[in-house]
Amino acid sequence: MQLSILSQGEELLGGETVDTNSAWLAARATELGFAPRRMVTARDSVEDIVWALEASAAASEVILCTGGLGPTVDDLTAEAVSDWANLPLRQDPEALAQIEARYAHWNRVMDATNTKQADLPEGAEILPNPMGTAPGFYVRKGEHHLFCMPGVPREMKPMFLEQVANKLAKIRNSDPPILHRIRTIGVPESRLQKVLGQIALAPARLGFRSHIPEVIVKLMFSPDTPAAIQEARIDTVVEAIGRGVYSVNGGDLAEVVGERLVAKGDTLALAESCTGGQLSAWIASVPGASRYLLEGIVAYANEAKIRSCGVIPSDLESHGAVSEQVARQLAEGIRARAGASWGIGITGIAGPGGGSADKPVGTVHIAVAGAAQTVHHRFRIPGDRAQITSRAAGMALSMLLEEL
Amino acid sequence: MQLSILSQGEELLGGETVDTNSAWLAARATELGFAPRRMVTARDSVEDIVWALEASAAASEVILCTGGLGPTVDDLTAEAVSDWANLPLRQDPEALAQIEARYAHWNRVMDATNTKQADLPEGAEILPNPMGTAPGFYVRKGEHHLFCMPGVPREMKPMFLEQVANKLAKIRNSDPPILHRIRTIGVPESRLQKVLGQIALAPARLGFRSHIPEVIVKLMFSPDTPAAIQEARIDTVVEAIGRGVYSVNGGDLAEVVGERLVAKGDTLALAESCTGGQLSAWIASVPGASRYLLEGIVAYANEAKIRSCGVIPSDLESHGAVSEQVARQLAEGIRARAGASWGIGITGIAGPGGGSADKPVGTVHIAVAGAAQTVHHRFRIPGDRAQITSRAAGMALSMLLEEL
Repeated sequence: MQLSILSQGEELLGGETVDTNSAWLAARATELGFAPRRMVTARDSVEDIVWALEASAAASEVILCTGGLGPTVDDLTAEAVSDWANLPLRQDPEALAQIEARYAHWNRVMDATNTKQADLPEGAEILPNPMGTAPGFYVRKGEHHLFCMPGVPREMKPMFLEQVANKLAKIRNSDPPILHRIRTIGVPESRLQKVLGQIALAPARLGFRSHIPEVIVKLMFSPDTPAAIQEARIDTVVEAIGRGVYSVNGGDLAEVVGERLVAKGDTLALAESCTGGQLSAWIASVPGASRYLLEGIVAYANEAKIRSCGVIPSDLESHGAVSEQVARQLAEGIRARAGASWGIGITGIAGPGGGSADKPVGTVHIAVAGAAQTVHHRFRIPGDRAQITSRAAGMALSMLLEEL
Repeated sequence: MQLSILSQGEELLGGETVDTNSAWLAARATELGFAPRRMVTARDSVEDIVWALEASAAASEVILCTGGLGPTVDDLTAEAVSDWANLPLRQDPEALAQIEARYAHWNRVMDATNTKQADLPEGAEILPNPMGTAPGFYVRKGEHHLFCMPGVPREMKPMFLEQVANKLAKIRNSDPPILHRIRTIGVPESRLQKVLGQIALAPARLGFRSHIPEVIVKLMFSPDTPAAIQEARIDTVVEAIGRGVYSVNGGDLAEVVGERLVAKGDTLALAESCTGGQLSAWIASVPGASRYLLEGIVAYANEAKIRSCGVIPSDLESHGAVSEQVARQLAEGIRARAGASWGIGITGIAGPGGGSADKPVGTVHIAVAGAAQTVHHRFRIPGDRAQITSRAAGMALSMLLEEL
C-alpha cells in the first residue's frame, strides 16, 4: 500500500532545519508494511499545501502530514485540508476543550489566537496531543486517508506511535512484515553487500543501513513466514558475515557492551587520546552507565599520559605517542588506576594534520586490558576527523565485546 | 528567483537515511539569494523522477537534483532527464575520460557497467567530480536550469561550492544577499524572538537557527546595503541580546574558545561527570585542539572524583556528588593536577533516573577555575538526557569564554 509524506515550514525550505520527521515516519511506515512513494516539503501557503496534498494523493492512499498546526498565521494545514477535502472549517468543541486543558495544566493563560488550533475541517477525527497544545486530526477523502500531526518531533512521535500506527494497521488490514536487524561493526557496507549478495536468502528481503561506525543488515519477511525459516536465514547471514556481527535484534554497541558488563558485574575505565572523550560520551549516553563506567581519562598531552595512566616516558620517546606500547600502557594503566575489570586505551592520528608516511592520518592503536591479558590492534581508518574518531570508538567497543 | 530541490533514492524513502543534502542545498541557495519553494523526494523510477522534475519546474526556474548518478540499475537520473528534456542519451567522451581517470588514479580496474555513468543527455554540460566517479551535469530546458549532482554528500558539496554556486550567481545576475551570523548561547530562541521582534532592524531581515546548545541569529541585507548600516544593525542586535552573544560571523563555541586559548597561550583541563566526556569530545573535534587541551577526566564514580580530582570525601557525603562544592573541587583539582591555566568541573543529573525533589533531573553545577578565582553556576536545564548534556557542555564553554 503506497504512502506519501508531506512536511511544511519555511525553516525546512530555508535549510535551517533538517527534516528528520519525514525519515522517521518513513521508517515507521515501512515497518508497518507500507511503501513510502513520495516525500514533499511545501511552503507555508494554502496554495502550496493543497498542491502537495494533491501530488501525494495522486500517488498514494495514505498521506502523513507534519507541521502547520500551531496558532500563528503561518499555520495553514487545517485551512488547506479544508480546501482540498471540501470540508468547511468549524471550531471543534472537543479540540478546544483539550487545548484549554493543556493551558490549565501549565498554569498559563490561553491567548485568543490559540483557539485557532481548534478550527478543524468538519468531520475530522481529533488526535489528542498530550505533549503540546495543537491536536492532530484524521480526515478521509474517498480512498485517501490523511493524518495531520504537529511538526515538533517530541509531539509528533508519541502521536504517531500511540494513535496513528494503530489506525494504519487497520487500514492495511494485515499484519506488518517482520524485520530482523543484524548489527555489524568493522565490515564495510560494500563488503557486506558482496558477501550477502551471493547467498540465497529467499523468502527474506535484504536491506542495509549504514550508521557510522556500524552497518545494520536488515532481513524482512512476510508476516506468515514460519519462525524456523526466519531463524535459519538469520543464522546463514550471521555465519556468512562472521566476526563483524555483534547483535541480532539488540541494542547499539554501547548498549550491548553495557548489558554484558552489568550481567558479569564488571566495570570499565577508559584512557582516550585521539578520540578525545567521544568513546566515553557514547558509553555514558546509555542510561544507567554509571553502574559500570568508573572513569575516563582524555590524555591529550604526553604529560597526562604519563601522570594519569602510567605511560613510560622512554616508550613515549622511542615509539611515539601513537604506538602499540603506549596503547597497551594506557589500557593497563587506567585499569589499574580505576580498579576496573577492563581498561581501554586508544591513541591515534585523527587528522587533518599530524600524519606522516610512517603513521598516516587514520592510524589508530587500540588496546583492551583485562585481568588475564591485554589485546591490541592497529587500524588504518579511512575518513575525515569525525569519521576516524567515531570508527575508532566503534572498534574499541567491538574489541571489548570480543573479550566479554 | 524560485528554486526547487529534488532528491531520490530508496534509502531516503525507506527512512534509512535522513535527507541532509536537501537542507544543505536549501541553506546555500538561500545564501545566494534564491527562494527555495519545494523539496521533493522521488522513488528510483524514471516515471517518478520525471514527475518530480515536472513538479519542480512548475514552481521554479532552478532545480537542484541529488542522487541517481551511479553505475547501478537504480541510478536513473540521466534517463529521466533525457525523457523530461527530450534530449537523447549519448555516451559523453569527456565524461568517460574523467571516469577512466578516476579509476586509474585509484589503481582500480574499471567495470564495464561503469561506462553507464558517461551516458548523459545530449548537450548536457559536464560538472566534473574530483571526489568520485560519477560526473554531475547541467541541462537547460527553456526557462529552466537543472543541476544534477551525486547523492554522496562528500561528492555533492564540493561540486556545488566549486561549480554550481558560480553558475547560480550568473543565473541570478545580481550579487547575493549579505548574511551575518550572531551566535548566542544560553538564551532560548523564544526569548530572542521576543526581544528582537520589538526592535526596528530594517533594512535587515531577521532569521533564527536553533542548533542545541546554541541559537544563531541571522541578519540578512540586500547586497547594496552600506557597510555602516550593516554594522549598526549588528551592534543593535548584540546590545539587545547582551551576554548571550559569543561571536559575530565566527566559529562555533569550541572553535571560539580554542582561538582565545591559543591567543593567550593558555591551556585547559576538564573534569566531567554527567556530561560523560561530551565536552571533551566537542573541544577535541576542533583540529589542533591538542595545543590547549591537556587532559580530561570523566569522573563517573565517586572514587574517581576523589582520586583523580582531589574531591574531599566528606563533602561528597554531606553535599552529594551534584553540588557546588564538588563542582568547584573538580575544577580546581583537575586544573592543579594537569598544570593547566583553566579547569572546568561539571556535575549534574542527566536523567532519565536519579532525580529528586531537591535535585531534579537537569540540575547541573558547573565551575570554572582560573589562577585568580573559581566561578560557579547552578543550572536547571530542560530536555532529555542528550539535550541536558549538550546544553551543559555549552554552558560550561560559555562560562569559560566569559573568564577568557
